Amino acid sequence: MKLLEDRIRTDGVVKPGGVLKVDAFLNHQCDVELFDAMGEEWARRFAGVPITKILTIEASGIGIACVAARHFGGVPVVFAKKAPSINLDGDQYATTIYSFTKQREYPVIVGSRFLSPDDHVLIIDDFLANGCALEGLMRLCDMAGATVEGIGIAIEKAFQGGGDALRARGIRVESLARISAMDGETGELAFIDDSAEA
Amino acid sequence: MKLLEDRIRTDGVVKPGGVLKVDAFLNHQCDVELFDAMGEEWARRFAGVPITKILTIEASGIGIACVAARHFGGVPVVFAKKAPSINLDGDQYATTIYSFTKQREYPVIVGSRFLSPDDHVLIIDDFLANGCALEGLMRLCDMAGATVEGIGIAIEKAFQGGGDALRARGIRVESLARISAMDGETGELAFIDDSAEA
Repeated sequence: MKLLEDRIRTDGVVKPGGVLKVDAFLNHQCDVELFDAMGEEWARRFAGVPITKILTIEASGIGIACVAARHFGGVPVVFAKKAPSINLDGDQYATTIYSFTKQREYPVIVGSRFLSPDDHVLIIDDFLANGCALEGLMRLCDMAGATVEGIGIAIEKAFQGGGDALRARGIRVESLARISAMDGETGELAFIDDSAEA
Repeated sequence: MKLLEDRIRTDGVVKPGGVLKVDAFLNHQCDVELFDAMGEEWARRFAGVPITKILTIEASGIGIACVAARHFGGVPVVFAKKAPSINLDGDQYATTIYSFTKQREYPVIVGSRFLSPDDHVLIIDDFLANGCALEGLMRLCDMAGATVEGIGIAIEKAFQGGGDALRARGIRVESLARISAMDGETGELAFIDDSAEA
């Protein structure tokens, strides 16, 4: 998606260690008009797929998912919560996700009322690198018996392989900007050219 | 706002200890069409006020603020982040907020690039009880020299007094549902009748 790629080139900052800072428009300050265009593009790519719910994870995914939901007929958005601990009281589905950034596992939960076997879920998140967060969200859907119809990602660090590993398992992953390489020294980055995209 | 009050009566759950659970539509599962109507109502109430930025706090405020922003000309949304610790490196404004729910203080930060003396800020959040979170967000605006034009709240627990304390200081607070009383035993709740509202 050229709009997002251009914005990453303009306002993103490549840092050493494979870090891309996009806090000016994506995950601290939020450009809601960009989010709206992203939602429109995901809706185009997932046209005809019967989405009943959007699942994301706090905090950065929430704004993107809520704005995008308008383009999916205003389906409800559920965000998985980062919990201090897992409370297996039957009211919630729980799993743990490993964070490479924080180098530790953290528990995430979803109220069991909010995912059901009738749900056809689109998972939305801001970043896809190794895919650990998405694996966790898919486990929550599995626990609920919900069907994951696909994954919509803003920025995929394709060079980290998580996206292709998901695709190899038959999961539909639609990333709006796929970064093939980043150089923390020069600040340069390159995108995978996806000629099928808008 | 009748739409929100009706939804609270239908899907909200009053628990003992002054707790109102609205996770079915507001802060875990998100009804984005309701959020859109809330944004429209805040825009009506703040018509003519020159808002350049919406400030909220993670996590529950983000979805509401991002959807509402469309009704303010798509101004950027900035969400204050709950930080593990305060890092006074000059790149961020930082303060602490006391949480009565968690009975502890937690640090919150906003990147200093994202609030400036030119900003006219509308603060949006899901709940207003004692007002501690809002005080923290206003302190961050003060540090930046930004002007707080007003506060938009989904649900005000008016019986806890935080909203009226802010209004007594001349701060414009527009709450879409104001609860005058809740009974954790019977599950009943009452709203303040605001005949000026839609």
